[in-house]
Amino acid sequence: MTLLVALTWDPKPWVERFRSHLSGRDIVVLGEDFDRARVRYVATWGPKPGSLSNLPSLEAIFSLGAGVDHLMGYPDLPDVPIVRVSQDDLTYRMSEYVVMHCLMYLRDQRRFDADQQAKRWEPDRAPPIAAQVRVGVMGFGALGQDAARKLKVMGFDVAGWSRTPKSVDGFEIFSGEAGLEQFLARTDILVSLLPLTSETRGILKRDLFKKLARDGHLGGPILINAGRGGSQVEADILACLDDGTLKGATLDVFEVEPLPQESKLWNHPRVTVTPHNSATSDPEMTARYIAHQILRHEAAGEPFQHVVDRGRGY
Amino acid sequence: MTLLVALTWDPKPWVERFRSHLSGRDIVVLGEDFDRARVRYVATWGPKPGSLSNLPSLEAIFSLGAGVDHLMGYPDLPDVPIVRVSQDDLTYRMSEYVVMHCLMYLRDQRRFDADQQAKRWEPDRAPPIAAQVRVGVMGFGALGQDAARKLKVMGFDVAGWSRTPKSVDGFEIFSGEAGLEQFLARTDILVSLLPLTSETRGILKRDLFKKLARDGHLGGPILINAGRGGSQVEADILACLDDGTLKGATLDVFEVEPLPQESKLWNHPRVTVTPHNSATSDPEMTARYIAHQILRHEAAGEPFQHVVDRGRGY
Repeated sequence: MTLLVALTWDPKPWVERFRSHLSGRDIVVLGEDFDRARVRYVATWGPKPGSLSNLPSLEAIFSLGAGVDHLMGYPDLPDVPIVRVSQDDLTYRMSEYVVMHCLMYLRDQRRFDADQQAKRWEPDRAPPIAAQVRVGVMGFGALGQDAARKLKVMGFDVAGWSRTPKSVDGFEIFSGEAGLEQFLARTDILVSLLPLTSETRGILKRDLFKKLARDGHLGGPILINAGRGGSQVEADILACLDDGTLKGATLDVFEVEPLPQESKLWNHPRVTVTPHNSATSDPEMTARYIAHQILRHEAAGEPFQHVVDRGRGY
Repeated sequence: MTLLVALTWDPKPWVERFRSHLSGRDIVVLGEDFDRARVRYVATWGPKPGSLSNLPSLEAIFSLGAGVDHLMGYPDLPDVPIVRVSQDDLTYRMSEYVVMHCLMYLRDQRRFDADQQAKRWEPDRAPPIAAQVRVGVMGFGALGQDAARKLKVMGFDVAGWSRTPKSVDGFEIFSGEAGLEQFLARTDILVSLLPLTSETRGILKRDLFKKLARDGHLGGPILINAGRGGSQVEADILACLDDGTLKGATLDVFEVEPLPQESKLWNHPRVTVTPHNSATSDPEMTARYIAHQILRHEAAGEPFQHVVDRGRGY
């Protein structure tokens, strides 16, 4: 059996881990010489055009991250199961990111950063408490639910929005077009964890920001996008920050990545930029997860878990 | 019945709230003309010398914050029950502070802040996960336990230290002098929520920092002090940051408050300063709590709750 590792990043740490968890098997890398007819599995992120063609024995493609939009636009995508990485580790990292940034807005940490720089001692004696701040989580799958649960433990007033109707104990979940307006009207901090599909492309735009709650305790609505950059319209975000439609934005993902040097997001005073690392896959954990999937498939002929629905696109 | 409000801050928002929750009673403020013989209760923070003397009808003193060290040093402190504010609201605020700052260290947020300023896109592909980071909470009362529980939900590996032996489900709690070394040796992020007593004055010093774990995933030990400034030796913190004994420090409290302009803590690159507002008492919540205590005491003769043990000092 051969596993082909096809990455836009340095493949070395991944190859080492796959070798240790799939000992005795061939692990090959794009660019090396290898027998394409023997490749049964591909582990990939952002494969180059042509790299997945002409693999007659291919049985599955593993995406080395939570999203699969990097594969969905790939021409001539082989007709085999596409397996998403769905690991607690990745989910927990995402929740850390979401909870930390919501707390930074709740507690106005950027103001206190500026105060420290200016050596200003100005305690605010009546800040809002978490229960007074409404967080709305868009995308209520495994990631969204874990983040929502942890936000709730921290005291926030949390609701969710999902494309299709969903019921999760302890949360009000709005759904579809019909539920979106209501959801936005009760949201002070909008957290997007949406996958990128034809329906979510460009969804985070002025029209939507205008519908967010304006009667909250944070001085205006906040956007946190840790889903996909293709969901956001950056020109609208900047314009809405400048005219007060948005109070602040924390963005981990961008229309173009890496974020171009000339983007005004980099040094906007009310934007926090992080380099698409809200929930990075740990090579060790991910390799272990994929090896486990391959071994149980080969030993017991069991179907792969977390297979992508190509119709929905995630 | 008369309630005297004796504050170092602007008393106005407090007086208004007390009037609304104790309608029909006299609420008076230091500096005004009032009949000292009619004062049955005092609500205070940092009372001036003499302000609590000559109050023959006094029945209780309410401290408008979690700590009471501002009262313990007061000369001629009247011999009546001293009631601490112990509210969920204040506890939750403290946990927000502790969880947010632990997450900022876990996720190296200060590095990403600097990267944003320099327009640098450098995702770290193998950051530690919360489970790999050991947080040690010193002071394991109501505040410490709530913070510990929430840190654990976020995935951190949490233990506690308490002056006296204590048992709380789900946590390893070290105690006394004997347990301190073991506790420090397994701690990457030290969170102090200690009250200020003769035993805790100056406890956060080089000797203690030297015993923190040096084999952790954060590149060195971190100190977060949201307890009392009198517990820390600031000269040691600065020296330990500079020689690598400490990797970073987040301080909400200081030896002298407001933190003097000349303090090197203000602009040390690895120090976060906040102006003693990790858990401020909300006037509305606090006034409601105190009014409730007074009314049940007067109606049913019930003893006050959360009365300070003067021997222990908290």
